[in-house]
Amino acid sequence: MRCEVLAIGTELLLGQIVDTNSAWIGEQLAASGIDSYEHRAIGDNQARIVAALRDLLARSDAVLVCGGLGPTQDDLTRDAIAEVMGVPLVRRDELAEAIAQMFRARVRDMPQNNLRQADVPEGGDAIPNPIGTAPGLLCELPGDGVAPGAKVVYAVPGVPYEMQQMVRDHVIPDLLRRSGEAAAIVSRSLKTWGTSESALAEMVAHRLDALDAGGGNPTIAFLARGIEGLVVRVTAKAATEADARALVDLEEKELRLVLGDLVFGVDDETMEYAVLERLRGRGWSLGVAESLTGGLIGARIVNVEGASDTFRGTLGCYATDVKRSLLGVTATSVVSDQAAREMAEAAQRVLGADVGIAATGVAGPTEQDGVAVGTVYFGLAIPGLPTEAVSTRLPGDRERLRQFSTISLLNLLRQRLDVLGAR
Amino acid sequence: MRCEVLAIGTELLLGQIVDTNSAWIGEQLAASGIDSYEHRAIGDNQARIVAALRDLLARSDAVLVCGGLGPTQDDLTRDAIAEVMGVPLVRRDELAEAIAQMFRARVRDMPQNNLRQADVPEGGDAIPNPIGTAPGLLCELPGDGVAPGAKVVYAVPGVPYEMQQMVRDHVIPDLLRRSGEAAAIVSRSLKTWGTSESALAEMVAHRLDALDAGGGNPTIAFLARGIEGLVVRVTAKAATEADARALVDLEEKELRLVLGDLVFGVDDETMEYAVLERLRGRGWSLGVAESLTGGLIGARIVNVEGASDTFRGTLGCYATDVKRSLLGVTATSVVSDQAAREMAEAAQRVLGADVGIAATGVAGPTEQDGVAVGTVYFGLAIPGLPTEAVSTRLPGDRERLRQFSTISLLNLLRQRLDVLGAR
Repeated sequence: MRCEVLAIGTELLLGQIVDTNSAWIGEQLAASGIDSYEHRAIGDNQARIVAALRDLLARSDAVLVCGGLGPTQDDLTRDAIAEVMGVPLVRRDELAEAIAQMFRARVRDMPQNNLRQADVPEGGDAIPNPIGTAPGLLCELPGDGVAPGAKVVYAVPGVPYEMQQMVRDHVIPDLLRRSGEAAAIVSRSLKTWGTSESALAEMVAHRLDALDAGGGNPTIAFLARGIEGLVVRVTAKAATEADARALVDLEEKELRLVLGDLVFGVDDETMEYAVLERLRGRGWSLGVAESLTGGLIGARIVNVEGASDTFRGTLGCYATDVKRSLLGVTATSVVSDQAAREMAEAAQRVLGADVGIAATGVAGPTEQDGVAVGTVYFGLAIPGLPTEAVSTRLPGDRERLRQFSTISLLNLLRQRLDVLGAR
Repeated sequence: MRCEVLAIGTELLLGQIVDTNSAWIGEQLAASGIDSYEHRAIGDNQARIVAALRDLLARSDAVLVCGGLGPTQDDLTRDAIAEVMGVPLVRRDELAEAIAQMFRARVRDMPQNNLRQADVPEGGDAIPNPIGTAPGLLCELPGDGVAPGAKVVYAVPGVPYEMQQMVRDHVIPDLLRRSGEAAAIVSRSLKTWGTSESALAEMVAHRLDALDAGGGNPTIAFLARGIEGLVVRVTAKAATEADARALVDLEEKELRLVLGDLVFGVDDETMEYAVLERLRGRGWSLGVAESLTGGLIGARIVNVEGASDTFRGTLGCYATDVKRSLLGVTATSVVSDQAAREMAEAAQRVLGADVGIAATGVAGPTEQDGVAVGTVYFGLAIPGLPTEAVSTRLPGDRERLRQFSTISLLNLLRQRLDVLGAR
């Protein structure tokens, strides 16, 4: 089964928007075992959309069109699909009513144009959109002289949330049904931090071999996610979702045996979520003192909903004399083991926190106190453990160095809390 | 003149990488007045790259291929272009020597595979790569029975920095030369914060009309850049770069007359850069006290190189009692005008800063002290001005709310400093 991706929008060609949708769709298709040989972006021009659709349908089983379903005259996806099918657009009363209802609920007048979103090519189906006004489309076309229904065009809005929901709930299941393959696919991402991709691959090589020998289900893939870490993704197919899930559960256990505490989270769990969950479990609060990161550690922590239960605050002490006056750092160099320990304890004391963590280092562009750019010292003050400093040398420019410092420090805290928990 | 963009890489189709290159290239082409009707992404498969190249060349003047120039057997762009041209690849000694030299300079052994990067389709030219090992390619093809040189294929590496340099310095100038249009194009982006796109368009409508009436040179375009603001971009063409720059200078003056202090920066200047520049000019240091943003204001400021001259630090006081104990906030509600003013003055006092700014508000998910989600209070304590609080209601989820709060507060500070400067 093969499905190509066609993104619609002149703003994509002009570079006013980066097309993140196609990458997201590509990942979903790959995880579902559906091939995709081409992603294409075309402007808001009906003749060109029609030509691209014909071209892609001629060499593929399905095309997923993303964008061009809005209410304005620029939105031509519906018209183009109808032209390719050789049928008129038909206004669907129930869709028009749903759109009018959505405007009434928001107490806003509905521009008449919006009713265009209730148009469906004759013989096609609408894909419901529970969170926006534009329904998607699912349209079958006869193949090249083969049986009817041999080809299919899906259309989804360009708004990422709406697109994602439709692709996940309707497009992928429909593609899987048509492919005659397993009805259910379950994926799970084990997020890791602290080792390289090649080292990870080596650690799980025996599992790759075992799965290959056993028929290749589930499969394992590696994804590099930058500061979100390296992801080991397990994907299983089965007749039912429960069966697929059981296969994934089993493989997750095997992988965790070798990956151990490299795994910091599953699926959408971030490092900051992992840390706050562990702190919450102990009823401990967290305080931060940070220098080179300038506030970034705090900024990441407050991205977790409900962080206020646990997070006291961050002391972003950029100037050396502020480290001394506010944090009471006495170390000769403010970029040192001792400074990191003093800062972590100051975070506990000044912010009234159970746990204090700290980062100090040299972000560049030039060295400081004779310490090279990229050198970072982390401090950890945790009840029941001696206050500790860990130093490291990180690569990259200012921005990358800060991001890596932040996640590395949070990862250290996560590991310490797990060690305590295991006692 | 029309140039299509062809991105090469299976990792793009699998969604392991988001294709930001095509958007960047699209923006450059548009700014240079070169049309682009299609962006396409294809995997590392020679037959498919060849088919896509033929297809795109049949309906366009030029194709810019991005990626697939690496040293491994997966990198097939060179081979595909040679196949389309019907010529062999020829190893160029001078390129091979440059690659070997680059490895010697890094004191690393060169894998023999790397010499593949010295291969150029017979009759084609190499585009120099001063910062990486892979040269680009510039290959002319006969048109469809028309004059030789009627079509051209460019190939550039997928590494963004290397790609950008080659496109800017070689591809765009070559396209402009071929288009027979103006030899020089100069663009300037005026970055604005504080009004809507439609209001901006209204403000400069008279300039759009005047330029249209005068032959459409320079042109004006609007770009929405999210938390980087709304950009008004002026692009001029002329026989020489100096002439084009003079046209842009003139138009910038006209636009600034109506845009006034909405403009916070030009081209790559960020809001944080604009603020630090103004502070530096007065020899003033900056301290921050932040609540809902959790450290983000500080984190953005330290992204500016040399921030340490000016930035003292940020007090990320998330917990209410820390606002009282560390900042001395006495206001009944910590989300109020009074709290914002007290926090700004505390940032001055505790951090020993000339200027103190503060943000407190409700990021959600639920209201706090009876204050609705999205309500934000900014405090500004600036020498020579009474300490001030500004309140606003911002839209969006937690992350967006924080980002908007950060840039809105920095923008307020910028405007106050400009008012002081104008006195």
